[in-house]
Amino acid sequence: MVYTGETKHIFKGNRERLCDAYTKGGFIYHQGGESTTRYNTDVDVVFRQEAMFMYLTGVTEPDFHLVLDVAKKELTLLMPRLPAEYAVWMGHIDTPEEVRERFGADRVIYVDEEAEFLAGLTGEIHSFVEYPEVKNVVFDAALKTAIVECRVLKSEDEMILIQSACDGTSKAFRETMKMVKAGMVEYQADATLNYHAYMEGLRFHSFPAITGAGPSASTLHYTANNKVIKPGQMMLIDGGFEDKCYAADITRTFPVDGKFTERQKALYNIVLKANIECIEMIRPGLHWKDIHDHATNVIAQGLHDLGILVGDLAEAKKLYIPSIFFPHGLGHLMGLEVHDVGGFIEGVPRLTAPGEANLRLQRELTERMVVTVEPGCYFVNETINPALADPEKSKYINEKVLREYQAEVGGIRLEDDILVTNDGHYVITTVPKTVEDVEKLIGSQ
Amino acid sequence: MVYTGETKHIFKGNRERLCDAYTKGGFIYHQGGESTTRYNTDVDVVFRQEAMFMYLTGVTEPDFHLVLDVAKKELTLLMPRLPAEYAVWMGHIDTPEEVRERFGADRVIYVDEEAEFLAGLTGEIHSFVEYPEVKNVVFDAALKTAIVECRVLKSEDEMILIQSACDGTSKAFRETMKMVKAGMVEYQADATLNYHAYMEGLRFHSFPAITGAGPSASTLHYTANNKVIKPGQMMLIDGGFEDKCYAADITRTFPVDGKFTERQKALYNIVLKANIECIEMIRPGLHWKDIHDHATNVIAQGLHDLGILVGDLAEAKKLYIPSIFFPHGLGHLMGLEVHDVGGFIEGVPRLTAPGEANLRLQRELTERMVVTVEPGCYFVNETINPALADPEKSKYINEKVLREYQAEVGGIRLEDDILVTNDGHYVITTVPKTVEDVEKLIGSQ
Repeated sequence: MVYTGETKHIFKGNRERLCDAYTKGGFIYHQGGESTTRYNTDVDVVFRQEAMFMYLTGVTEPDFHLVLDVAKKELTLLMPRLPAEYAVWMGHIDTPEEVRERFGADRVIYVDEEAEFLAGLTGEIHSFVEYPEVKNVVFDAALKTAIVECRVLKSEDEMILIQSACDGTSKAFRETMKMVKAGMVEYQADATLNYHAYMEGLRFHSFPAITGAGPSASTLHYTANNKVIKPGQMMLIDGGFEDKCYAADITRTFPVDGKFTERQKALYNIVLKANIECIEMIRPGLHWKDIHDHATNVIAQGLHDLGILVGDLAEAKKLYIPSIFFPHGLGHLMGLEVHDVGGFIEGVPRLTAPGEANLRLQRELTERMVVTVEPGCYFVNETINPALADPEKSKYINEKVLREYQAEVGGIRLEDDILVTNDGHYVITTVPKTVEDVEKLIGSQ
Repeated sequence: MVYTGETKHIFKGNRERLCDAYTKGGFIYHQGGESTTRYNTDVDVVFRQEAMFMYLTGVTEPDFHLVLDVAKKELTLLMPRLPAEYAVWMGHIDTPEEVRERFGADRVIYVDEEAEFLAGLTGEIHSFVEYPEVKNVVFDAALKTAIVECRVLKSEDEMILIQSACDGTSKAFRETMKMVKAGMVEYQADATLNYHAYMEGLRFHSFPAITGAGPSASTLHYTANNKVIKPGQMMLIDGGFEDKCYAADITRTFPVDGKFTERQKALYNIVLKANIECIEMIRPGLHWKDIHDHATNVIAQGLHDLGILVGDLAEAKKLYIPSIFFPHGLGHLMGLEVHDVGGFIEGVPRLTAPGEANLRLQRELTERMVVTVEPGCYFVNETINPALADPEKSKYINEKVLREYQAEVGGIRLEDDILVTNDGHYVITTVPKTVEDVEKLIGSQ
């Protein structure tokens, strides 16, 4: 359920941490998201705040700006001035005092008073985004780094919202897994997922959900969602919803008939083993690539055990054969954006090898990071067929066995959201994932 | 249910009518909607095509352009060139030939070939939107008028999609009216409405739905949707969903307990009478304002009969007292936009009186127009209180009686979608609306 308690202190805490981290002092300036309409018609786009502005204010309405006094840790909000007659159409228009109280700001003025206000400040005004059109405001890369690094570490208060987003998303997954049946269209899984999340008060998705059955699940970012689900297929659902812009992100893959086939179970258990063991590894100080490598090894060994991969596995790895089946990174930071900021450290060169190049997190884990762990195994013809056509690579693949598995499985991914704690980790998401639990859940309706 | 049949001929028909209407010949150029992400993150905004581009092509994917040869009625589509490696993430990438076949175009090239293609055309290239950055293309206001007037009259083929949008939306309304109960939060009505529409294959709303209970229903464009629904309240739901961008737009207001109180019933029947009688009036040749005026008269007379309005009604009308309770227009054209283009004729001055100024349709009805009929009656403190404070106006209002009704009703609106036929009209939407039918529907679960 959406968190309905007081939230001012969450965003106040965010501001305070930034003010402590940013040693240059002076003032910080930023503009929030703007109200937009569909193609200049009068159809409003439902407003979702920009992440940095949300982080510093908690304001969920469009067309606000902020000025933060770093030394005093004082927030000035600049609000849009709406014509009085809007009240008939939009309801009561809050006064600046009401806005100040609602968001716990220290001062609220109108945006049309901004130029004068900025001109009157004594001290430098910095921004972490370029605002060439705003006088007196200077972009500072160090400020950008400071706020990104603040956002990387989630406070206990922020965790309240990540937890409620994960709780609501977890519930939506459980309900959807029970509902999905052969004969439905893939988008009906999306409809069901959205419904249960929104019923919990989570209106915004973290990203458009992927709901693909059978071969559709082999397309990593499949969003057509327009195929009829067939008996015997596995369904992959990757989705997440936000509470006050804080994201959740879950993937489950399950047999739509409620019962795994032997081949489905064998592949599923490989991905499950990678998911569980990688989560178990999570603790401060470990480099994310080491955990990713473990997932790669588990998947490679599993495919070898099944006879899909053959020959010397060490040699196959040198040719990045496993990345044919696991072509993406193990996971990413998660917060006010589902792929949250801070995955790369400025100045450290990015990884480039197949599979590793797609890692969205290339640094050591630190206490209070929130990460996703999402190993997967897919039969993607776009990566398999070129490998089979290459004699150097094809000798490590048994195509006959591969095609037998491919006929029953498009792709499997299992994703949970994890908080790094001082001595390990805490799993935030709660959707059944063992073969037994999944079959029990799906059979429960 | 979403229309899953062939649609190429629908958009081909649209192109042909424009080519017939646009006597200057030459070529027509237009750019479709662009793919966008949320605040420059990697979170895709689910793509909804721009209405004019949809009208002429039926293309539901982003980043396309079109060139239409007016004399030959030939469509050239310009498609984006995607890197081959996208296939791993997005699935099979259609070739130009596949795109040509899919949308029934005469020729498909890549957008990066556009400059050369345009330069090679012999004849003027016109657009109905300004494209200062595209060489050889000249804006023509006459072309804009031509396409707007084409869009005003819906072909039989277009009606297939408007009908399926209205069918799916009607079904979603019936299901939602059965589900909504006191104790739910208003947004849960929105969640339920969206769910049932999406389950029918209607993924996009025509506009963000208004789901307001009790006093919330008095805010005309209420979208906070965050109040708990109380026993005894009436719920106003104004929503609609699209099939291939063609809109539906329905409003129903109903007692959440399934049973109208006497006061609720009395007010409801006034709005219902206005809705039914205005629909009955619809035929080619009648000016929309005349039908709007009838709605105003029915509502004014009804409020007078209930004792909310007192004194000489003709005098009250001169002071626009009825517009305090019915402050919006009777309806609007509907098509590829919910408030469709063509409501005003170029050069004809707009109406300015209270109530009338908000009319979105200020012209005579013509066969094949699709309009909404949505009379309403609201107790909006933002319009009532100033009137009560004005001695000239307050003498026509019995505040005591008004407040008694206001305690039980925030606002009532009843909206249906209507096709103007050669000798009258056809009601496209199918949601129960008599007191008896509404009570029966809500009691049915």
